[in-house]
Amino acid sequence: MININKVNINKAHLTSINQPVPARDKLEFDQAIQRVEQEIRKLLQNAPPLIRPQTSHLARATGKGIRARSLLACAMDSDGLVTPGAVRAATAVELLHLATLIHDDIIDEADTRRGIEALHVKFGQKIAVLCGDYLFCLAFDLASSISPREADRNKVSVVLPSYFTEICLGEIREFSNTGNLDLNEGEYIRIISEKTAALFEASFHAGFLLSDEPAEVKDIYLTIGKEMGIIFQLTDDCLDFISSKKKVKKPVLTDCRRGVVTLPLIYAMQVDKTLRGKIEKGLTEQELKAAVLAAGGIEYTRAKIEERREKAEQLIAVLRSPGKRDRLEGLLKQAATV
Amino acid sequence: MININKVNINKAHLTSINQPVPARDKLEFDQAIQRVEQEIRKLLQNAPPLIRPQTSHLARATGKGIRARSLLACAMDSDGLVTPGAVRAATAVELLHLATLIHDDIIDEADTRRGIEALHVKFGQKIAVLCGDYLFCLAFDLASSISPREADRNKVSVVLPSYFTEICLGEIREFSNTGNLDLNEGEYIRIISEKTAALFEASFHAGFLLSDEPAEVKDIYLTIGKEMGIIFQLTDDCLDFISSKKKVKKPVLTDCRRGVVTLPLIYAMQVDKTLRGKIEKGLTEQELKAAVLAAGGIEYTRAKIEERREKAEQLIAVLRSPGKRDRLEGLLKQAATV
Repeated sequence: MININKVNINKAHLTSINQPVPARDKLEFDQAIQRVEQEIRKLLQNAPPLIRPQTSHLARATGKGIRARSLLACAMDSDGLVTPGAVRAATAVELLHLATLIHDDIIDEADTRRGIEALHVKFGQKIAVLCGDYLFCLAFDLASSISPREADRNKVSVVLPSYFTEICLGEIREFSNTGNLDLNEGEYIRIISEKTAALFEASFHAGFLLSDEPAEVKDIYLTIGKEMGIIFQLTDDCLDFISSKKKVKKPVLTDCRRGVVTLPLIYAMQVDKTLRGKIEKGLTEQELKAAVLAAGGIEYTRAKIEERREKAEQLIAVLRSPGKRDRLEGLLKQAATV
Repeated sequence: MININKVNINKAHLTSINQPVPARDKLEFDQAIQRVEQEIRKLLQNAPPLIRPQTSHLARATGKGIRARSLLACAMDSDGLVTPGAVRAATAVELLHLATLIHDDIIDEADTRRGIEALHVKFGQKIAVLCGDYLFCLAFDLASSISPREADRNKVSVVLPSYFTEICLGEIREFSNTGNLDLNEGEYIRIISEKTAALFEASFHAGFLLSDEPAEVKDIYLTIGKEMGIIFQLTDDCLDFISSKKKVKKPVLTDCRRGVVTLPLIYAMQVDKTLRGKIEKGLTEQELKAAVLAAGGIEYTRAKIEERREKAEQLIAVLRSPGKRDRLEGLLKQAATV
């Protein structure tokens, strides 16, 4: 069996979190998110030497951790504290996200990610497939090591893998709709619900399970998570049209370049009936951008974001802890600006 | 969250196996392996429509299930019966194996697998990456749904992911040694211990945990599993040199074609000091095969297999149940003939 020290997951913790978590082991939110960031850096920078060139490259540009932050915010108890299991779950979610990004970039033939060279560009496709698999396994390894008895609740490690399956299906659905100009808004929302919002919902679900919230509010958590994920993706889709490369740290107008049809374009084709024909004949990226903007594709998408933001905000207001409400409102705002 | 019925894992079982398993729910070995085969076929043939073309293709040619059989044999209790959790774990192990084969075939640029077209050849590389990811997740989903309380033992779902991480590292180690004619026997054994034997060891470990064996014999199980995996791989390496394509249902001499250096070749280069130079200058496949055979590479590897087989056989003889010993001896024989 693998020497687990090699991959730096300290499973010695496992026994200690098999019991209800004593208050002294709990962490403030800020400590917890720092711990997640440290843990990810450690797992990447001290990976087995064999894969360290790749994981060190990934460590050069980590994300903003909105999924981990969401999970930790949801996991806050009535004193605003989170358990070590929540740190572990948040780390697993971010690693899983990283693994999917690596495989995504292969599928999308993306050149850069988070402002640095994509892994498959720097190290080749084959090693990128394997490196993604490795991070997948690490994520599951972490998820499986959260004690089911922590905080007398069960199933965090049972809940996460189902969402991970859903994310894979979302990726497949997106890929199989490449270049599909017939895609409608409903189908599009389904794709992003799976490929993006499922991991947000997973984070909210896991956070809820690791918190001390009563069972009755579970669905509120799930809905906020899903809405936040959809908002995050819709915002990203807008930015792909209107942002500058430097600002979003990734190439813009990539969606249309790689044939991914998103809501601003779907709406623009509805309004401007000539657009589809022009696209089929061939438009430059700038022409496409101008057409989508002129048809109001961005405003429409922004309005949809705003509807969902209001819904999520109302649900957040139902939660009992003011500290948690503040955190979640902040994250919601972040999701809508990326 | 994903509707789990879509992917056909019946998590309703979950609650029922959260209690110690009543005798009436246990299965005979033959019933259990049939159940595993049915479950795999069902998961592949009734996968979500989106991915069903790919999974149905995979269902056309399933393997012999030596890993599932090993797990079930190890999981047999003193009455020769296994629990539903063992069926679930065995299914997870086979699905994980299938997922790694799909990604392997991409890495190795293999055209066929189990006598049919490789997935990436039939459907393209990108969809094959995603399909492998999907099966990875399904496997973890199944593994995570085995109750830790089944048979009063813990940790099956904690143990499996660590092995899965090890398998990824083995794949990476093999890939990074492509064309490395300096590879020595020790390094080679390390690669196959990770990439192949780890999943056998995982199967034996999980089977042990789901059985009623005392903790003292755990290491015996792990060692038999690891040895059986190494034997399986060494036998496969010999067959790559000596078998006909029809017989092994896959192309032969693929290892050398794709630059994978295996033990028969490592030994042949030790004996025949001119061989390395000839390979570097360029040999036909038939010339290479003849040189490896002439230098005794196959006999040497066969002798190594025999040493390990004897060791494993002695360990199997220590186990207390005659029925289990018979099963494991049969599987050991199968591993050494493939």
